[in-house]
Amino acid sequence: MTEKLWHKSSTHLNPLIERYTVGDDTANDSVLMPYDIAASSAHVKGLARIGVLTEEEKESLLSGLAALKTEWEAGKGVMTQDDEDCHTVIERYLVAACGDTGKKVHTGRSRNDQVLVALRLYMKDMLVRIRKEAGILTADLLSFADRYRAVPLPGYSHTQQAMLSSVGHYFCSYLEALLDDIEFLDGVTIHIDKNPLGSVAGFGIALPLDRSGTTRELGFSRTQVNSLYCQTSRRKFEAATLEALSQIMQTLATMANDLILFTSREFDFFSVDESCVTGSSIMPQKRNMDVLEIVRGSLSLVRGNQMMIATIGSQLISGYHRDVQLTKKPLIESCVRTLQSIEVMREFMRHVVPNEESIKEKIMKDIFSADIATTLAVKEGMPFRDAYRIACDRLAEATVDPQENIRSKISEGAPGNLMLEQYERRIKTLYSISSEKPSC
Amino acid sequence: MTEKLWHKSSTHLNPLIERYTVGDDTANDSVLMPYDIAASSAHVKGLARIGVLTEEEKESLLSGLAALKTEWEAGKGVMTQDDEDCHTVIERYLVAACGDTGKKVHTGRSRNDQVLVALRLYMKDMLVRIRKEAGILTADLLSFADRYRAVPLPGYSHTQQAMLSSVGHYFCSYLEALLDDIEFLDGVTIHIDKNPLGSVAGFGIALPLDRSGTTRELGFSRTQVNSLYCQTSRRKFEAATLEALSQIMQTLATMANDLILFTSREFDFFSVDESCVTGSSIMPQKRNMDVLEIVRGSLSLVRGNQMMIATIGSQLISGYHRDVQLTKKPLIESCVRTLQSIEVMREFMRHVVPNEESIKEKIMKDIFSADIATTLAVKEGMPFRDAYRIACDRLAEATVDPQENIRSKISEGAPGNLMLEQYERRIKTLYSISSEKPSC
Amino acid sequence: MTEKLWHKSSTHLNPLIERYTVGDDTANDSVLMPYDIAASSAHVKGLARIGVLTEEEKESLLSGLAALKTEWEAGKGVMTQDDEDCHTVIERYLVAACGDTGKKVHTGRSRNDQVLVALRLYMKDMLVRIRKEAGILTADLLSFADRYRAVPLPGYSHTQQAMLSSVGHYFCSYLEALLDDIEFLDGVTIHIDKNPLGSVAGFGIALPLDRSGTTRELGFSRTQVNSLYCQTSRRKFEAATLEALSQIMQTLATMANDLILFTSREFDFFSVDESCVTGSSIMPQKRNMDVLEIVRGSLSLVRGNQMMIATIGSQLISGYHRDVQLTKKPLIESCVRTLQSIEVMREFMRHVVPNEESIKEKIMKDIFSADIATTLAVKEGMPFRDAYRIACDRLAEATVDPQENIRSKISEGAPGNLMLEQYERRIKTLYSISSEKPSC
Amino acid sequence: MTEKLWHKSSTHLNPLIERYTVGDDTANDSVLMPYDIAASSAHVKGLARIGVLTEEEKESLLSGLAALKTEWEAGKGVMTQDDEDCHTVIERYLVAACGDTGKKVHTGRSRNDQVLVALRLYMKDMLVRIRKEAGILTADLLSFADRYRAVPLPGYSHTQQAMLSSVGHYFCSYLEALLDDIEFLDGVTIHIDKNPLGSVAGFGIALPLDRSGTTRELGFSRTQVNSLYCQTSRRKFEAATLEALSQIMQTLATMANDLILFTSREFDFFSVDESCVTGSSIMPQKRNMDVLEIVRGSLSLVRGNQMMIATIGSQLISGYHRDVQLTKKPLIESCVRTLQSIEVMREFMRHVVPNEESIKEKIMKDIFSADIATTLAVKEGMPFRDAYRIACDRLAEATVDPQENIRSKISEGAPGNLMLEQYERRIKTLYSISSEKPSC
Repeated sequence: MTEKLWHKSSTHLNPLIERYTVGDDTANDSVLMPYDIAASSAHVKGLARIGVLTEEEKESLLSGLAALKTEWEAGKGVMTQDDEDCHTVIERYLVAACGDTGKKVHTGRSRNDQVLVALRLYMKDMLVRIRKEAGILTADLLSFADRYRAVPLPGYSHTQQAMLSSVGHYFCSYLEALLDDIEFLDGVTIHIDKNPLGSVAGFGIALPLDRSGTTRELGFSRTQVNSLYCQTSRRKFEAATLEALSQIMQTLATMANDLILFTSREFDFFSVDESCVTGSSIMPQKRNMDVLEIVRGSLSLVRGNQMMIATIGSQLISGYHRDVQLTKKPLIESCVRTLQSIEVMREFMRHVVPNEESIKEKIMKDIFSADIATTLAVKEGMPFRDAYRIACDRLAEATVDPQENIRSKISEGAPGNLMLEQYERRIKTLYSISSEKPSC
Repeated sequence: MTEKLWHKSSTHLNPLIERYTVGDDTANDSVLMPYDIAASSAHVKGLARIGVLTEEEKESLLSGLAALKTEWEAGKGVMTQDDEDCHTVIERYLVAACGDTGKKVHTGRSRNDQVLVALRLYMKDMLVRIRKEAGILTADLLSFADRYRAVPLPGYSHTQQAMLSSVGHYFCSYLEALLDDIEFLDGVTIHIDKNPLGSVAGFGIALPLDRSGTTRELGFSRTQVNSLYCQTSRRKFEAATLEALSQIMQTLATMANDLILFTSREFDFFSVDESCVTGSSIMPQKRNMDVLEIVRGSLSLVRGNQMMIATIGSQLISGYHRDVQLTKKPLIESCVRTLQSIEVMREFMRHVVPNEESIKEKIMKDIFSADIATTLAVKEGMPFRDAYRIACDRLAEATVDPQENIRSKISEGAPGNLMLEQYERRIKTLYSISSEKPSC
Repeated sequence: MTEKLWHKSSTHLNPLIERYTVGDDTANDSVLMPYDIAASSAHVKGLARIGVLTEEEKESLLSGLAALKTEWEAGKGVMTQDDEDCHTVIERYLVAACGDTGKKVHTGRSRNDQVLVALRLYMKDMLVRIRKEAGILTADLLSFADRYRAVPLPGYSHTQQAMLSSVGHYFCSYLEALLDDIEFLDGVTIHIDKNPLGSVAGFGIALPLDRSGTTRELGFSRTQVNSLYCQTSRRKFEAATLEALSQIMQTLATMANDLILFTSREFDFFSVDESCVTGSSIMPQKRNMDVLEIVRGSLSLVRGNQMMIATIGSQLISGYHRDVQLTKKPLIESCVRTLQSIEVMREFMRHVVPNEESIKEKIMKDIFSADIATTLAVKEGMPFRDAYRIACDRLAEATVDPQENIRSKISEGAPGNLMLEQYERRIKTLYSISSEKPSC
Repeated sequence: MTEKLWHKSSTHLNPLIERYTVGDDTANDSVLMPYDIAASSAHVKGLARIGVLTEEEKESLLSGLAALKTEWEAGKGVMTQDDEDCHTVIERYLVAACGDTGKKVHTGRSRNDQVLVALRLYMKDMLVRIRKEAGILTADLLSFADRYRAVPLPGYSHTQQAMLSSVGHYFCSYLEALLDDIEFLDGVTIHIDKNPLGSVAGFGIALPLDRSGTTRELGFSRTQVNSLYCQTSRRKFEAATLEALSQIMQTLATMANDLILFTSREFDFFSVDESCVTGSSIMPQKRNMDVLEIVRGSLSLVRGNQMMIATIGSQLISGYHRDVQLTKKPLIESCVRTLQSIEVMREFMRHVVPNEESIKEKIMKDIFSADIATTLAVKEGMPFRDAYRIACDRLAEATVDPQENIRSKISEGAPGNLMLEQYERRIKTLYSISSEKPSC
């Protein structure tokens, strides 16, 4: 058992308690390590700027941190089960590498500070990666919608055929949802883009820490001012982040749900390449959309994690409580799962095509009833409620061509007026204002 | 039993099933009525602009709608248990008032359309009201923090005295939280500020509906384009809205929690006026902070409602499902509760004062240990980890004046450097860019 | 504003705060009133047994309580917005009716006590009603399964046809689920069947309260001993109760989901009587299963309420906190909704019939692949994994009769071996050990 | 990439999709492996009993399974990232070990079957282990309550001193809670103790599987009859299991919360041994109860996981959906965490003692007001409501001895009448009816 940073006397922490409190932090902190190193470097430079460290000490510590990062990147197990957290690893490494100077790195900061800033940097990084991947998916959706704009597809309400829609219309609905999700995610990214480093244990310190300096250094847009709020904001920012992820996952889940039903043999609206379906161990004929089911289930995973994060410590007084350590896992898991889910949906979409003939066979004639009622109301001036009452009778004599019907739906955003150029414009706007340009 | 809009034949809906499906919609739809009337007026004007209604018909319908609104405002029970929903009430009223013209109001729209736009208008309206009330609370918090900036208050972590803070410092943490919450709420407000009217049943219509016109008329910033997405966005926008409310409620709950503990007799850090405390039916001495407890509990209420909204229908295919009717109640309840919670916290704050003497007595000397360690590290150049190890021994000989200690904490956002002017500036920015100016 | 029980001085509670803390308790407490009256009567008798009340006082108070109950049952608005809670109404009524004797009713109890016992009685009562209704539904399901035991129905996994099942097989799955739910509910009922009356404010009293007496009087099986645990158990028992309701709602939701999909026109496996379907305001052809959708959505409602109840006050110290007042609404709402959902499903089932011809047309031949592989493995001794690999090829030459295939599935619980008599026995056992016998 | 069980043709599953669908199942299935092996052995014996396998084949397969178990127990990495799941590992191992006979193991079962029965066995096993550990904790709580029965401790409501309680009274409240939790857990254990093996893919099979035999062999009390219900029950049983765990965690969290507050320096009601407290990296004086905070936070973890499990796939039709794979992790994590939390609380309790002197100093005199009012009411016959109004005035002249006050509280379950013998009896009953006897 290695010594703890806060160790003062000869008493050792009870090993059962130690294992329990560390929990799965070894795995989580391994993910956070590079962010903690980056923040530690910024902290060291800040201390040097206010004269707490000499230039020499600064250089020594920065070299130590750089060396640690290299080891971490090389996959050397820099963190072991014995280490309480990544913060301990860093200080211990620096003491080993820089001697007494290493013992100075913790001046003017606390581990609360470190975990706050490391998580903030991690979240920002993951949101950027998610945004980029989502951007590519918007481009894919746009081109899919464009390609199949004229392919009819029944529109459903209450899981019953309602009015005629089209493949393009459905995919535009996912596309517009995802564009909204990206805007929401951008809002959250801006919201959390605040530097908590320098809050120390939540109550500041009697040093003129160069907080604006570390804010710049670490690429934050603003400094999170009140040091106590730095603490209390943690769970709130994490819950907001998971709302952004949930919004994306809901879009993907809806898309997955549609495709799962529409690829069932009863519907047979889409064909999926063999490389994307999985089989059964007992029923040789099965062609299952497992990947879509995992996407759909992952929405519940992210929502469950959000509820976990939102409730952990929610009824406690201001200031750090160890409870919040437990938000690391659901946060990391949700970011990773969302990123993967977008990637996998992009891959899946490359292997899906609509079965136009099969779709046409399944369209029920009375799907056109509302259109007939509308025509009666508009062309013949019949009050709509009366037209509604006789529309079904007129159905028998009507002949409706699906393609023509789609074209006739000219209201903005209807199957006959998809307004694709609007989406194209939104994609361009979203991805030119970002420094991270996806390939679309 | 009044006749249903969709009634065509002689079969009557089973009364048990009817009661069950209507549920508590009579109460919810009563709240939504004025928004549905406003949207109906916009729809009527739009139909007139595209020639589906004559000017005369338009005027007749608008008069009918205005009359209905007047009755509703006068508290005349325009909606009864027999009515399926507020949409039915409106059409029936118009048919009674305008005859055949009344039967034309439903051309080019569906009830799905109506409920979408009514809920959207309701949310926007409530968010504006919540924002306004929250703005006044920020001003109250700022002046409270300013007034008591020099009053010490122990800072806690792990519910143990950690380092010295101040009343000003705590209240700035609530203030900065609330300012962030308002910015987040603004983001959500912009996010949902999109007109779904004209989506019809989710699949558009063969009419050139003037959607841009109704967007302008109803004060929306943008038209929500894809008609299917109008449907699928409902639950997503509601979940996002509840995230914004939850963020505010978490800020209030943290504030409530601090005050509940700090007004306990063991702490005795604050006094509360008799008019704000409640008693016990058996223990005559009790002075309970029930109001703060209800605020704290209301966080769980809003979070539970969010989970309800987020899961209802989350695994279904695109398009309307009746399940979503069940989101009305948790949405309305959460908006109302958040608004009331802000109001009540404002009221409560007017009746709270810190007990400076009592606080000072409770400050433990070793709360200054970290400061001593920092001083040793900075002044005497001792490596921090070594200074940390001897700080407790130095405590005995140290004399620390709380006020002076507060002033010494000069890092940005620390008790000695609250940066109140930054908050003042943020309040001004937030409330001058809004059309709804609170009195601060 | 009427005076509060705990009122001592001249200060009045701030009206804004008062309204906020009372919240929607007027409605909730109206539901709880008869239970509070019953518990008050038991308390009065108990006080008389230990000599704290004279026989005369007892009789006076019991008459008062009886009179109040009569008024309540007659629908006289005995509780108004001005009343803090139903407990206050009772004491005030008794003071008005019995003078000074009325002021004695509160000896040896507190309102915490009252709300605990009233809620406990309410829960028990509702669980009995729900159990009864669920019992009738089990009988309905059994006879439905029996009637249609030979009607084939495709079995699905991953929303793809998997192996052949039958209508009887599906309905037995709902039946067995519901029987399990009832057993679970019985377990919860026994679990919560503990009398908290006599816990006073959570810390007992210096009186030899006859708690065993009130336990008997109120029909509880056991006395909940520790008075502090009486308090802390509240939310736990409520969460357990909502788990029992959620289990039932999940069974109903699965049944609803199957029927929603299987009554879609693409499947057309079942026909539903006109009296159970609802229409659309714009699409005249629509026949929607709104009732099933509300059942399905109500699962989310109960689960959301459970999460609300489970989190309210979950991180607080032992003892009463006002936060828990907020569990009343989600508790009552969930009980009522579950009861109604069972009733409505019973009604719905009376109007559903399978469309055997339509089902047969939709059965895909390769649904029999696993059966062929099994036959090859068992009859021809081929290793299963090899048989699996060639089963699809054998499909072409195979002729399979659905009815015969169903009969061949003889493993316990398979479509050809439903074991209906087991369910019949379970129903009999469950409903003969209960005092409340349903009509099955 | 190893070949899949369901592999038939030359197409390979897309590697991105494969990785995504397997997810973290390698880790989860490693936990489930021994349960799957046990169930596979039972299945093999069952097949032999109905003549599908010869005695020789049976012996060969059982030897293979035993060998695999030995390898697994020896920690040999029998499962790799390449393996789809533990079911695949088993079949592949048997094919390697037993040749063509290995290919016969899957006759009459499916992987759905295997995962159902493995999870059921895992849950049962964990519940037994949790029950055992909880039993030891009840004994510890009983002896703690007994030892400190006379030590006063303020009772709180609304976080304000309410009436006097005692250390014994508080710990009895945890004890009675935990005894109830164990009874609830026993109910859930009985509820889920049903054998799903033999459900095959959810629709049975044309073989007379000896399901009663495997039920006996695997130690289940009953066979879960309907094969489709075997599938749909999975998530329900898991949610019920997590309710049982949540109930325990809520008890531990309340206990943790009390101790966190009561060990704060403002309260100072309990002392904790140095070996159980953790320090701060910057504040040398800190003595934090991290372990209690992680226990408290773990309640949110289990509740979040329950919500995840309860919602995954909750709106889908009957039959297996891949979504449910995602319940493995929250289920396993919650079982493990609950077990550890009990262990760690037991350890912690060994190192806690009440500070009687410090407690006595903190008791406020007016904590006795309700007692005075009760005395006035009972001894002097004053109506309680009047006594209540003057009790505070009488306080000044009263002298109250805490110990004597505790003794005076004689109502059942009050501090002066703890009824410890009842708990002793319950512990004995609970642990003698169980085959797994804890040491108490």
